[in-house]
Amino acid sequence: MADMDKIERIAKMRGFIIPSSEIYGGLSGFYDFGHLGFKLKTKIENSWRDFFLKSDDILEISSSIISSEAVFKASGHLDSFVDPITQCNKCKTMFRADTMIEEKTGKFVEGLSVKELTKIIKEEKIKCPKCKGELADVKVFNLMLKTTVGPVEGNIAYLRPETAQGIFTNFSFIARSARAKLPFGVAQVGSSYRNEISPRQWIIRIREFNQMEIEMFVNPKKINECPNFSKVSKEKLRILTQEAQKEKKDVVEITAEDAVKKGIIPNKWMAYFLAKQMIWYQKLGIPFESLRHRHMLPEETPHYSKGNFDLEIKFDFGWKEVIGNAYRTDFDLKTHSKNSGKDMSIIDDNEKIVPHVIEPSFGIERAVYGILLNCFVEDKKRGWDWFKFPANIAPYTVCVFPLVKKDGLDEKAREVHEMLKKHFDSFYDNSGSIGRRYARADEIGTPFCITIDYDTMKDNTVTIRDRDTTKQERIKINDLTEFLKNKIA
Amino acid sequence: MADMDKIERIAKMRGFIIPSSEIYGGLSGFYDFGHLGFKLKTKIENSWRDFFLKSDDILEISSSIISSEAVFKASGHLDSFVDPITQCNKCKTMFRADTMIEEKTGKFVEGLSVKELTKIIKEEKIKCPKCKGELADVKVFNLMLKTTVGPVEGNIAYLRPETAQGIFTNFSFIARSARAKLPFGVAQVGSSYRNEISPRQWIIRIREFNQMEIEMFVNPKKINECPNFSKVSKEKLRILTQEAQKEKKDVVEITAEDAVKKGIIPNKWMAYFLAKQMIWYQKLGIPFESLRHRHMLPEETPHYSKGNFDLEIKFDFGWKEVIGNAYRTDFDLKTHSKNSGKDMSIIDDNEKIVPHVIEPSFGIERAVYGILLNCFVEDKKRGWDWFKFPANIAPYTVCVFPLVKKDGLDEKAREVHEMLKKHFDSFYDNSGSIGRRYARADEIGTPFCITIDYDTMKDNTVTIRDRDTTKQERIKINDLTEFLKNKIA
Repeated sequence: MADMDKIERIAKMRGFIIPSSEIYGGLSGFYDFGHLGFKLKTKIENSWRDFFLKSDDILEISSSIISSEAVFKASGHLDSFVDPITQCNKCKTMFRADTMIEEKTGKFVEGLSVKELTKIIKEEKIKCPKCKGELADVKVFNLMLKTTVGPVEGNIAYLRPETAQGIFTNFSFIARSARAKLPFGVAQVGSSYRNEISPRQWIIRIREFNQMEIEMFVNPKKINECPNFSKVSKEKLRILTQEAQKEKKDVVEITAEDAVKKGIIPNKWMAYFLAKQMIWYQKLGIPFESLRHRHMLPEETPHYSKGNFDLEIKFDFGWKEVIGNAYRTDFDLKTHSKNSGKDMSIIDDNEKIVPHVIEPSFGIERAVYGILLNCFVEDKKRGWDWFKFPANIAPYTVCVFPLVKKDGLDEKAREVHEMLKKHFDSFYDNSGSIGRRYARADEIGTPFCITIDYDTMKDNTVTIRDRDTTKQERIKINDLTEFLKNKIA
Repeated sequence: MADMDKIERIAKMRGFIIPSSEIYGGLSGFYDFGHLGFKLKTKIENSWRDFFLKSDDILEISSSIISSEAVFKASGHLDSFVDPITQCNKCKTMFRADTMIEEKTGKFVEGLSVKELTKIIKEEKIKCPKCKGELADVKVFNLMLKTTVGPVEGNIAYLRPETAQGIFTNFSFIARSARAKLPFGVAQVGSSYRNEISPRQWIIRIREFNQMEIEMFVNPKKINECPNFSKVSKEKLRILTQEAQKEKKDVVEITAEDAVKKGIIPNKWMAYFLAKQMIWYQKLGIPFESLRHRHMLPEETPHYSKGNFDLEIKFDFGWKEVIGNAYRTDFDLKTHSKNSGKDMSIIDDNEKIVPHVIEPSFGIERAVYGILLNCFVEDKKRGWDWFKFPANIAPYTVCVFPLVKKDGLDEKAREVHEMLKKHFDSFYDNSGSIGRRYARADEIGTPFCITIDYDTMKDNTVTIRDRDTTKQERIKINDLTEFLKNKIA
């Protein structure tokens, strides 16, 4: 397996991801998607929509990125979306207190108060990692990015820390306008913000990131009535239970069905999403063994939660969350109802209820990194490295070459490119040897290369080369679209 | 034609657009797209990608929304992205000085200095429109939304006022990684921010808005070498020339080709985009007569521009810009090159040059309003109002009904819905009379309704009803997908 440094370097060179504002030295924690990164990201999002939203007729909305202060006062983010920080009295550098303590002492300090953290720093005599100076008392730092809206003084507003709040605040509006009946889901894809103390690990811990979130609204009495559960009930999950974490044991491999029966997963709706996540991520090229659902420990879980499960991927640097699944109960709707004075109930079985919420929340940048890392092939035999992206998410599906630039081959190749790009992401390349062009197509993970040669001019056939096998076959131009469509499906 | 109030009301009720944070009284200038608005917006964006990007192999990127201060210092936004404001000394309300003067006096004051505006307010004895108080001297107000990034003091950063700067700052990175040769275009779709003094006219003048921008990079010596120009050269344009504006004359109707020949449009690349815009907007349902390109007056145009043309739509309240087209020359690349110290040139014809830029910049919310307004049909005969959205941008393409909920019709209808939603946006409706369901489908602009009845159970045919004609025909279930695909294309 390659490592992050290598993937980061290649991703930049090839046009996937570059630090934002880089010509001015960058802005820590912000990245731009280049032309290939944009396509990869968009296809991941669309694959997600197809797989998670269509199957359950989940509605998608797009709320504003900036929201009023009232929203985050109600949601609890103003008070609780904080990290503990400590500053060096000497060099003035700011550190995140909990991660620093964990790194220095190996102690697990998640959920401890600022007082407790300060105490540990003093007891363990922890000094500034930079200059060995004294560290100040730990205090909390709110991670929301703030702005002011309106002329001069303006109103305080925040860049959303998650897309979810735009769904909760619009719950009644959506339910009414869509005439939705429980259970129903609402999703949102878009950027969120977290003013990290120290962004790190390339696109893993960043300040502007993209999320795909689903809020599934369910009658709590029917939390085990999940219409499509039987479609995934036999799917194998890998679960790291709370017990296993305490006793340093390994994951349990168990079907979704059995995990519910044995009480390892609290209900069918949660199990349904966990099973689908396993299927989806494997389709995107992450091996079964590199995926696990970790049952979050009580100290990592908010008081209102009835069970949180993180999907983690085994990266080169270790296991890391890529999806957070939270059984949020009725906390969000009730708190917004209380703070806004608006009714947030809905009728189900002739009863007025505030639904419960199951929330799967996907991080897009982490998905992108997981896919780049796992699809990267270091290939001494070919003489170049390449990406084995699944055909449905490869930035370009196909590349079209003329064998030579004369005798009408160039025009014919352009014609084929024009035909294909109505249905696929196609690019055209007429420079360098065919071998060099194959290499370039492989390097950006293009599943198919089509060469127009002299035979094409006679019989309207082309050679199509498969990226993974490098095998070539002869195929009629008229059959190309169907051929590629089948490969993608 | 309906008016804005009516469309706004319906858009909210049906699930297109709702004020952001509305349960907390809203946040002026911010809106959320509901489940239908999201689909409409997304389909407009995808129609734009198909029509403008694919045809010219234009690359798309996605840069971060927050950028470092250095970017906007270089781009000129820190100094020049300002509005003149004046405050009432008595009630302290803030006003945008230029629009207030224009409304009070009918004078055209665009481009005047704060001193000149102050002078006019004094000379014309303009008072506070709210309380008749004295107005203070005019000063400038920067329209960028500011935030600070990083712990405690942090670095100043801004929410982008346009997506374009993310393209300019990445120019060399994109050109290199995509091995691009001139002419080539780079596009971006996403949200931008403008801290309007007083947001107004629903989604026309807002603080968070969505843009679709193209930067077409061209060798200035080849500004008339536009490969696909012949495909649109005979297209009729409606141009309001600078002369016509001064002399209060009407638009000139002229082909793209002739407009270039007569010097009405400065070059073929500009004419190419203007012609395509006319075609695209007519496809989306805006009549030819409701579209015009206004040649911006010198006082509305930045010093480096070699010609700006706004596409305006005739709304219920008058003509308003929906696309800005700017011939920005090499201003942006040169200023970023100078400020960053990075080379921004590219080789063309063995010569190192800084390319010129033609920039068509589309506002998405204004497109949405234009389409909602022009597709809205007040229909006394049917007894309900409906939207005649073109099939390719209608939120739902098709709605599936069972005639009754028994005898297996419901299951059969769900099967058809499941089949169709693999290819289209389909929704399922089994409540109320068929007439009521037709009405509901019409009200959200669904082009086709499919009813499963007792004959379906015998011969696998369904009735398909056309929204525009209300005519029904009988069609085999197996032919439905093909039928609908042809209707969309």
